[in-house]
Amino acid sequence: MGATRVTETLVLSLLLLLSGSSATQRKKTRAAPRMPCKQMVFYFHDILYNGENAKNATSAIVGAPAWGNRTILAGQNHFGNVVVFDDPITLDNNLLSIPVGRAQGFYLYDRKDYFTAWLGFSFFFNSTLHRGSITFAGADPLNKTRDISVIGGTGDFFMARGIATLMTEAVEGDVYFRLQVYIKLFECW
Amino acid sequence: MGATRVTETLVLSLLLLLSGSSATQRKKTRAAPRMPCKQMVFYFHDILYNGENAKNATSAIVGAPAWGNRTILAGQNHFGNVVVFDDPITLDNNLLSIPVGRAQGFYLYDRKDYFTAWLGFSFFFNSTLHRGSITFAGADPLNKTRDISVIGGTGDFFMARGIATLMTEAVEGDVYFRLQVYIKLFECW
Amino acid sequence: MGATRVTETLVLSLLLLLSGSSATQRKKTRAAPRMPCKQMVFYFHDILYNGENAKNATSAIVGAPAWGNRTILAGQNHFGNVVVFDDPITLDNNLLSIPVGRAQGFYLYDRKDYFTAWLGFSFFFNSTLHRGSITFAGADPLNKTRDISVIGGTGDFFMARGIATLMTEAVEGDVYFRLQVYIKLFECW
Repeated sequence: MGATRVTETLVLSLLLLLSGSSATQRKKTRAAPRMPCKQMVFYFHDILYNGENAKNATSAIVGAPAWGNRTILAGQNHFGNVVVFDDPITLDNNLLSIPVGRAQGFYLYDRKDYFTAWLGFSFFFNSTLHRGSITFAGADPLNKTRDISVIGGTGDFFMARGIATLMTEAVEGDVYFRLQVYIKLFECW
Repeated sequence: MGATRVTETLVLSLLLLLSGSSATQRKKTRAAPRMPCKQMVFYFHDILYNGENAKNATSAIVGAPAWGNRTILAGQNHFGNVVVFDDPITLDNNLLSIPVGRAQGFYLYDRKDYFTAWLGFSFFFNSTLHRGSITFAGADPLNKTRDISVIGGTGDFFMARGIATLMTEAVEGDVYFRLQVYIKLFECW
Repeated sequence: MGATRVTETLVLSLLLLLSGSSATQRKKTRAAPRMPCKQMVFYFHDILYNGENAKNATSAIVGAPAWGNRTILAGQNHFGNVVVFDDPITLDNNLLSIPVGRAQGFYLYDRKDYFTAWLGFSFFFNSTLHRGSITFAGADPLNKTRDISVIGGTGDFFMARGIATLMTEAVEGDVYFRLQVYIKLFECW
């Protein structure tokens, strides 16, 4: 009888230990096998400076290879061009919709024989919808859809990690493109 | 009696399992709800090359938009300027204090209508105080205080993740600025 | 007897709770104290454009300080040079081996008084061997061996985090270098 009492106490302690730890400590929510703990879809719109659109441009060539310049994207699939951007983020695919944030950072074209890019940028939000940032980095093979990494976040997206699936929705010459960004977070705090 | 024996054994096994796992496996320390597992404050000092300070400069403009050059920060809130830096890190806010490490990487100005930046850099330490690196990335809205992400670390900061709160402590023209960096790690190994 | 029954049930529930959670939820594999959950060794080969090797070059200077240009690496330990690359990845140290992927991104030289660099790049794989990407960032002191951070991954390397130990295996003038990259992942999903 005493022995069972002891085991009961032990079991209860264990239960308390287990439940207690989750009560006092806000753990990361880890999703089931590759089920995101948070999903969001946004669009952003890039208007590249081409010497004539200073007013509307949201991005500019700031690096170029020896054979290029900073007004026109270089030959050889723009290899070596570095572009800095501050693009409006919208909830739908309309450039004229009210922006809910800004996509800020850079992309660079890194391949001679066809288009590929590398991206480092953040979504920056400062509205009632979201406050904080999500930071992305990774290779962009410029396929129809492709994944890059969510490497961190602040504010509402504190410590976020995950994947973003990019899809180029529209391209107009070398001046305008629109990306759909489907964000899937797998670590949410 | 035999049954209680069995339960005792089970309970003990469970206890061993729980304690054993933490004994044999050095797990990440996860802090309580947004309580850092490690906190540190540093300062770093940026002296931008302006054509006349080659000796003291710790950073240089390496990218500029078509309307800019690499000796003077461009108009339109420096939009498109990319700056590479190797800045001394100090424990207090005195530029002349003995550096404890170097802040290395780049920042870029990414907005036409007011100042915002994007940062990718590391704190690199190689002294008795700290050995290893902490890598940061993210949008910098250049508010009074703002958060960017700690995306990784090596050595003493192996696998670190967290947040760094930046505060611009001093600005002298376009040549000198000093940042306070309050690092809060939420994943420590 | 009834009491032992209860404890047995509790213990079983606990066991189920513990085992169940690992059965229904594919958790991150966390390695023992600093034992990687995945290890890989690759090599990549960088051939820098120097004005004469347009055909073979896999990288190009795209940013330079005011005192530099984009055909020859700048003085002062190349301080301020930004290089974009798309380099073949091989399984051995032979430049002519069949590539298994591409190393894509950028490096920049960030110190005046000796060589140091900062890297942001991805390994991009699209073959039967591997499909997906691994993204790296960090300061590179250009010692014999040095660690940078693995900050994310996609596809086969979904959500990867870890460390990569770099070793410069060969350097030929300012044109060719070969890096050995020993990847150690400590978070595998």
